[in-house]
Amino acid sequence: MLRCGQEPIPRSGRAGYRKIGSNLITERVRKVNMKRTRIKRLLASEVPVDNIFVNGWVRTKRDSREFSFMEINDGSCLKNIQIIAESKLENYSQISAITTGSAVGVEGRLVESPGKGQRWEIDASRVDVINVAPEDYPLQKKRHSDEFLRTIAHLRARTNKYGAAFRIRSEMAFAIHKFYNEKGFRYLHTPIITGSDCEGAGEMFRVTNLDPATVAKAGKMDFSRDFFAQEANLTVSGQLSAEMFALALGDVYTFGPTFRAENSNTSRHAAEFWMVEPEMAFCDLTGNMDHAEELLKYLTLHALTSCSEDMALFTEFVDKDLAKVLDTLIHEDYERVNYDDAVTLLLNSGKNFEYKVVRGNDLQSEHERFLAEEYFKKPLFLMNYPEKIKPFYMRLNDDGTTVAAVDLLVPRIGELIGGSQREERLDMLEQRMDKMGLSKEAYWWYLDSRRFGSVPHSGFGMGFERLLMLLTGITNIRDVIPFPRTPGNIDF
Amino acid sequence: MLRCGQEPIPRSGRAGYRKIGSNLITERVRKVNMKRTRIKRLLASEVPVDNIFVNGWVRTKRDSREFSFMEINDGSCLKNIQIIAESKLENYSQISAITTGSAVGVEGRLVESPGKGQRWEIDASRVDVINVAPEDYPLQKKRHSDEFLRTIAHLRARTNKYGAAFRIRSEMAFAIHKFYNEKGFRYLHTPIITGSDCEGAGEMFRVTNLDPATVAKAGKMDFSRDFFAQEANLTVSGQLSAEMFALALGDVYTFGPTFRAENSNTSRHAAEFWMVEPEMAFCDLTGNMDHAEELLKYLTLHALTSCSEDMALFTEFVDKDLAKVLDTLIHEDYERVNYDDAVTLLLNSGKNFEYKVVRGNDLQSEHERFLAEEYFKKPLFLMNYPEKIKPFYMRLNDDGTTVAAVDLLVPRIGELIGGSQREERLDMLEQRMDKMGLSKEAYWWYLDSRRFGSVPHSGFGMGFERLLMLLTGITNIRDVIPFPRTPGNIDF
Repeated sequence: MLRCGQEPIPRSGRAGYRKIGSNLITERVRKVNMKRTRIKRLLASEVPVDNIFVNGWVRTKRDSREFSFMEINDGSCLKNIQIIAESKLENYSQISAITTGSAVGVEGRLVESPGKGQRWEIDASRVDVINVAPEDYPLQKKRHSDEFLRTIAHLRARTNKYGAAFRIRSEMAFAIHKFYNEKGFRYLHTPIITGSDCEGAGEMFRVTNLDPATVAKAGKMDFSRDFFAQEANLTVSGQLSAEMFALALGDVYTFGPTFRAENSNTSRHAAEFWMVEPEMAFCDLTGNMDHAEELLKYLTLHALTSCSEDMALFTEFVDKDLAKVLDTLIHEDYERVNYDDAVTLLLNSGKNFEYKVVRGNDLQSEHERFLAEEYFKKPLFLMNYPEKIKPFYMRLNDDGTTVAAVDLLVPRIGELIGGSQREERLDMLEQRMDKMGLSKEAYWWYLDSRRFGSVPHSGFGMGFERLLMLLTGITNIRDVIPFPRTPGNIDF
Repeated sequence: MLRCGQEPIPRSGRAGYRKIGSNLITERVRKVNMKRTRIKRLLASEVPVDNIFVNGWVRTKRDSREFSFMEINDGSCLKNIQIIAESKLENYSQISAITTGSAVGVEGRLVESPGKGQRWEIDASRVDVINVAPEDYPLQKKRHSDEFLRTIAHLRARTNKYGAAFRIRSEMAFAIHKFYNEKGFRYLHTPIITGSDCEGAGEMFRVTNLDPATVAKAGKMDFSRDFFAQEANLTVSGQLSAEMFALALGDVYTFGPTFRAENSNTSRHAAEFWMVEPEMAFCDLTGNMDHAEELLKYLTLHALTSCSEDMALFTEFVDKDLAKVLDTLIHEDYERVNYDDAVTLLLNSGKNFEYKVVRGNDLQSEHERFLAEEYFKKPLFLMNYPEKIKPFYMRLNDDGTTVAAVDLLVPRIGELIGGSQREERLDMLEQRMDKMGLSKEAYWWYLDSRRFGSVPHSGFGMGFERLLMLLTGITNIRDVIPFPRTPGNIDF
């Protein structure tokens, strides 16, 4: 069923994977799966190549008496490659029966395509039919709504739009690791199951292995008999753990799943999402903002350069204004504005907001978007929020009423990043915890970090899905997550 | 408190972070945190440098009447840099009071060290005391047991051994992403909260936001009223989701946390651990093994080349035989043995195992280690297990009694990798599910992938912590996880 072909080496193709030891490509019989050529490589070829072998799925097909034309895609890139199968092939009747969504293996020659819109096509010497998709294959060639595609999330990555979105998601995750690796930051896996709650960043899911039957019999959830012998939750942030490691390794970051059990069915919230959280020792609020700006510029540029083909789908077909937004992200200096000044701006704006602007309260999404989209027309850092609306770990400013908090607001999304300089002074931290009624015993290890070698340090969290929405113009968070989890929805 | 210094550029130092836009280094006032030099860079300098500034924590200190000598570490590397503070410094009495674990900022000159064991030291012109650690700082200069250090997991990364372990952990996570990025694999975030159970790979934690008080009142856990309107669990594997994406994007991998609610307090099991799971379309069992071997060789070589200083701590001080094991991992061809032949080998071995070897049953850890450590003395793939001891998704071999499963067994660890070629034939898969009493309705989406464009595909899971134990010689999984979760233990 699967057949092999010689691996072509396009002159300007991507460098192949570096071989580690000569024993990797020795006498051992190599099976076909090591020899197929990815379509991305073929399309990048600079010369015709004989004896190639590709695998893929049929996106479209049309037949004439003499030929069968198939566009096939193997997921390696957005573009398909055209296959020409002549009627003289011995299994042409089988080939004629190939449908959209079917899987094939094709041997042949990579030749210049006389058709327009493509440089190369494959003149097939053999077509193996691996699987014929039945007529009810849901992804027939037509436009499908995002809503419909969510109901077949197990198949939607086979479409152009979602294939591109998830290739971009992959590449941006890599870019985050690359950025931090180059800067000497250490990647930290903070616990997913936690006994602490990062001071109520949100509603938490409980984790338990109490047997429901036992619970029913006892008439209660007895956590002392649970797996961890106490209540346990899914993390809402790795920050407190990351602080411990920043005070040991200097610069660290986390990048992992975080959770909110909030029953909010909006286009911007999911119960499970990924967050990047850098934490830097010897870093103040200005350093924190410099870092956030550098990160977002790096990632935006990386998307445009390393995912150019996939990004073009979004800038051309999904959102006509996207290219301009991305240009702003890369080239503008981000504004830095005090909360207090921003409130004045909003109060004087003359805008008729749905929610009233109240000095001392948190801003609403519409206020944030007004600042980023209409007033400054670029990203802005909002700094120094009132102490009373921010968590205990943020550093109290010298005015005694504000803390060194910072949010990065961006057009379309609103808050992309939230962070702060942390309170490194033990006495101030304890005062703040007392004031907020937090248990110093529960946070003994966190307070230890302020006893032993405490230093100024800062960090923030950036929602990865919001970044992806910003970069692609996709407006619903469900459409940038492979299998999204929202209230009442845990399919797949 | 924090002071600035000019950034030295060692001739052979690491290339600095590539600037994205000129606007990043313009007139904006740069705060001190952007200007400190990491000790790793200083130690790599090829020339003396005036006007440097470092931040760090004091590891050791000794005083004479004329000088104070401090070894400071900033987490950027294993090595400390020595600071010489002369008694003429105006705050010398304050400097004299500095203790182990204290945080300092030091301005001065990088000069050749007359002492042995180091090339450079810093002649301090100014020492700012940021924090003086009290006498009860737990990490005084002496050896601490691993058991003790587990009780202060929030501080242990400040020791040489754990600093090195967690820098290696970080670098190996990056190496995994780098390996797959270079090979064109797409990184996939599969769901952590799941409604399916990947066919009982292990005991699962339940995820709920049912209120305990409500549960007590109702006398039961009513999952229809829970967040997802049904039972939900923490994932034990991303495989089934990854298969969906492999059939769209070709080659994918996951790298994320997975969970087991098993009450086993061993040195090799944790309730929360990270797993790498590649999944490859158009790939059979041989391709799967080739890939696993290439991955492990790449990662081992990467550890030795990119973490050489930290790895040396383990090869020299933690495990004298480690270097030899690592050499084997890189240079030997891994053996490939059928389950049936391995059982014969074990039965004929003359070894007196604690657990009897029974043909048709799973092997025990002692059997696996005998094969890897004593018999073959290198890693081996164990292939083609009896169908009845393996999950439904593994491909039935033509003999009708075995499946295309494969485990990679390595010295010291036993099973490092477990995988298979997946059953791509819809009828065979359904037969197997029926036989095992699995609900085809619950897996409708999984079965869809065998209806529409099904192709041969393969993949495996590699436990990241087991890899780290293999590479460092650390023998307890609790010591390669920043904050480990085990039965009854959710501190920090």
